[in-house]
Amino acid sequence: MKARVIVTLKNGVLDPQGKAIEGALASLGIKDVDGVRQGKVFDIELGQADAETARETLKAACEKLLANTVIENYSIDIA
Amino acid sequence: MKARVIVTLKNGVLDPQGKAIEGALASLGIKDVDGVRQGKVFDIELGQADAETARETLKAACEKLLANTVIENYSIDIA
Repeated sequence: MKARVIVTLKNGVLDPQGKAIEGALASLGIKDVDGVRQGKVFDIELGQADAETARETLKAACEKLLANTVIENYSIDIA
Repeated sequence: MKARVIVTLKNGVLDPQGKAIEGALASLGIKDVDGVRQGKVFDIELGQADAETARETLKAACEKLLANTVIENYSIDIA
């Protein structure tokens, strides 16, 4: 079973990397970009056949390792 | 207009970061994870109201800055 986990910064958390990308796009002549925020994506291959068990495994993975839940949100998408 | 760009490694390109995450999950007791590949996600706020123009802007941004098209794929999702 394949799953995709997306980890993004919470609103209000500063994102200097996103700001740098915004500046770089402007200097490359790409206009009309009002904001960029960068996050992480994890494409995960799971052995479980059951979606419910898979979701629990992924939730544990996010809480323990993939996301810093103080400043980041995560979303789990099971294909 | 909001858009999400996801940049992932092409198949066949080694992903040591993903491998490290896989090992870390196993050592945390999270089982049944058969593979992890890490990518990047960009949440972009655009000034354009027209989806077609926005897609062209984002395509240019990906080709010029956000993705290394030799080893990475990108997907553009306009909300």
